[in-house]
Amino acid sequence: MGVSTSIPKGTRDFGPVEMIRRNYIFDIIRTVFRKYGYLPIETPAMENLTTLLGKYGEEGDKLLFKVLNSGDYLSKSNQHNLENITSGALTQLITKKGLRYDLTVPFARYVVQHRAEITFPFKRFQIQPVWRADNPQKGRYREFYQCDVDVIGSDSLFNEYELIQIINCVFSELGIRNIIKVNNRKILLGIAEILKEDKRFIDITKAIDKLEKIGIEGVNREMEQKGVSGNAIDKLQPILFLEGDTNTKLGKLKEILKNSVIGIEGVKEMETLFSYINLASLKSIVELDLTLARGLNYYTGAIIEVKATDHQIGSLCGGGRYDDLTSIFGLKGVSGVGVSFGAERIYDVMQILDLFPGKGEENVDIMFVNFGSNEECYSIKALTKLWKAKGISAGLYPDPIKIKKQMAYANTMNISFVAFAGEDEEKKGVITFKKMVSGDESKVRISNIIGDVRKLMKD
Amino acid sequence: MGVSTSIPKGTRDFGPVEMIRRNYIFDIIRTVFRKYGYLPIETPAMENLTTLLGKYGEEGDKLLFKVLNSGDYLSKSNQHNLENITSGALTQLITKKGLRYDLTVPFARYVVQHRAEITFPFKRFQIQPVWRADNPQKGRYREFYQCDVDVIGSDSLFNEYELIQIINCVFSELGIRNIIKVNNRKILLGIAEILKEDKRFIDITKAIDKLEKIGIEGVNREMEQKGVSGNAIDKLQPILFLEGDTNTKLGKLKEILKNSVIGIEGVKEMETLFSYINLASLKSIVELDLTLARGLNYYTGAIIEVKATDHQIGSLCGGGRYDDLTSIFGLKGVSGVGVSFGAERIYDVMQILDLFPGKGEENVDIMFVNFGSNEECYSIKALTKLWKAKGISAGLYPDPIKIKKQMAYANTMNISFVAFAGEDEEKKGVITFKKMVSGDESKVRISNIIGDVRKLMKD
Repeated sequence: MGVSTSIPKGTRDFGPVEMIRRNYIFDIIRTVFRKYGYLPIETPAMENLTTLLGKYGEEGDKLLFKVLNSGDYLSKSNQHNLENITSGALTQLITKKGLRYDLTVPFARYVVQHRAEITFPFKRFQIQPVWRADNPQKGRYREFYQCDVDVIGSDSLFNEYELIQIINCVFSELGIRNIIKVNNRKILLGIAEILKEDKRFIDITKAIDKLEKIGIEGVNREMEQKGVSGNAIDKLQPILFLEGDTNTKLGKLKEILKNSVIGIEGVKEMETLFSYINLASLKSIVELDLTLARGLNYYTGAIIEVKATDHQIGSLCGGGRYDDLTSIFGLKGVSGVGVSFGAERIYDVMQILDLFPGKGEENVDIMFVNFGSNEECYSIKALTKLWKAKGISAGLYPDPIKIKKQMAYANTMNISFVAFAGEDEEKKGVITFKKMVSGDESKVRISNIIGDVRKLMKD
Repeated sequence: MGVSTSIPKGTRDFGPVEMIRRNYIFDIIRTVFRKYGYLPIETPAMENLTTLLGKYGEEGDKLLFKVLNSGDYLSKSNQHNLENITSGALTQLITKKGLRYDLTVPFARYVVQHRAEITFPFKRFQIQPVWRADNPQKGRYREFYQCDVDVIGSDSLFNEYELIQIINCVFSELGIRNIIKVNNRKILLGIAEILKEDKRFIDITKAIDKLEKIGIEGVNREMEQKGVSGNAIDKLQPILFLEGDTNTKLGKLKEILKNSVIGIEGVKEMETLFSYINLASLKSIVELDLTLARGLNYYTGAIIEVKATDHQIGSLCGGGRYDDLTSIFGLKGVSGVGVSFGAERIYDVMQILDLFPGKGEENVDIMFVNFGSNEECYSIKALTKLWKAKGISAGLYPDPIKIKKQMAYANTMNISFVAFAGEDEEKKGVITFKKMVSGDESKVRISNIIGDVRKLMKD
């Protein structure tokens, strides 16, 4: 062998079967987004580092892939003394661009940059890969797709309802049974207020966000370490695990939070949202989950997370309302709400639960056998006619190798019909079609090849 | 304003209108590729630099975007003495990955890496962005899409015919009138042989490749500078500009090249290919163009290039046969042939010739007016019913702002119908639909909203 043919760790090649399955997921998501009136945008893979740095915390900055400046970048950097320079200082000197880390920050940048052309409320979706220099492990990659849908420039709770409808529609079309968990950062802030720990709100939400990973003891330990008082932690427990249906929980919360203006605001928002949800009959189960916190600090209102019912795998979709995302780029007072579907986890769940539609999507309908140069003209004539038919995929085996080998190829490739256009067939003006799954053979007239083949394919 | 919101030079944001037009092009190309039996693959944006370097010439190496190693890369590089280091030496020390420069080299890498799983002949297509640190100028970007279609593992000329059919089909569906120019590197090599300049074959083809840019005088001057004899240059002129139709040209070439084995082989290949082409009636004009050379050295047989008839813009698609592409990764003797469609140029031609389908693709079908919290339940009920209908896109204006402003929004967004579900309508169990283009109003029954709306949309 010559040069190594490996690819960078954490990245993947997608072969035809994976691609067709991935496109199946993306097509459904895209169609649902369009149906609900969202329009596509795309942003470049590379963003200026000034756009990306400082938006994902210190850890996130480290996980950004940075792109080396072009040309003789050292001479351009006006600093030749690199003796004893640190990696960090050198990076600043020789990189200006990075690969996007998510679709949220590029979207915020997009909205600010194009605000003069955009008609608000702006309903957009974006399906593109993102890159993170994370340590690769099962289900975690360095290149992966996100499917984001957001509406920006409206603070109506109707948008939250619409997103829940979108989630319901996407997963229902994909066939994934699911629970949509909803909470509100205002309720969490209200709880922190009545516990007199509003200064440690971020610490509390970050701890609660880990509930699934580290259990309630772990959450309590982390809050304690961050300085949350034992009294507050004790008082928090029964609130986090309030029992009953959503209405009951909201009723109890109203009582608990009666002295917190922001908390009551959160409860009222949830009441409105659930009043909308109750107008529809959804396949998804929607429930208020007070332990849902979402780690990201830019969420300011409703937060949403989706789990598969039939397989434990972390969330398939998540998001929430952000009141001030674009302010990092200087545009204040623009509220938005959105969710992001994780294509890789959805793929894994569908694979595990065997939810992809059967074979038939990825194969070719018809393969003509190649009998060699004497007969090929007749095959090519027939095939060229067939190519004019919409929705039929067809080809000729390109080389006149042994018929047995050609049939083996057709088998491996899951070809539906093999067509024989030999000397005999040419004389009679027909083509023999063999249905591979049954072995049944039929004659098709070349004069009516499209019609006859369509009939065959329906049978 | 806060932080700058610019993006790296040579890159672009795509807004909804551009996206829908770009997807229109990609969808047609993808559907045609599938119809002809080609299957999708995708490769990672980043490849190891060992895969990319040395494949695109010295100039190409410079145009690769290189990605900085992660973490404390200097300490990992085992070399702390960076004093007086050059940019080139430093790059070797601190980068291992680069962004893909085209789809051909990653495809060759893919074929070699996955050769055990692949059933040959392997018919694949790939539609992904590529990155080049070229100087941006009109129509030339640092991030742009390529749409490659190749069959590898077969040397049958039927594959070339199939690609010409694909080209014909794609441009016919897009509505772009075009000429497919075909030539054969073996014919060019034969010509070099009979001119006794086969050692300068690459110089000759590189010069001829510039014909359009620098004219025949320029080409001759360049050949002279490269050491091609005056006698050879003189003899070349009438051959390059042979007159007559393809058959006539091939006949004359047979005579001219009778002493070149490889040249006659090229002529015979073209005879076979044109005998296939003559079986079909194509919208594209296909012609043998002896001045077509294609700069890339890996082409060994047929070469193909497509030009728009109605607008001069360089080639919209190009490619050819390569007999040994995978040998750079250690897999020898695998012949392939493929073409690449340039999405950006196709977009530009379609824009200039006004070939995109009219508005109607990018807009939302229905927008409910928001009358405020008293009426919103009725609107949401109606909308929620409508969302169950396949192929209808609909929404509610999320905020109860002035009706006039909501109507202005509907106008700007090219919404087809505005729906009014007010108090009056609720009493009667109807919704008023206003067709925006005509101003016509109709009542729709909420009990049969989907059927009634479908009827409205058809009118």
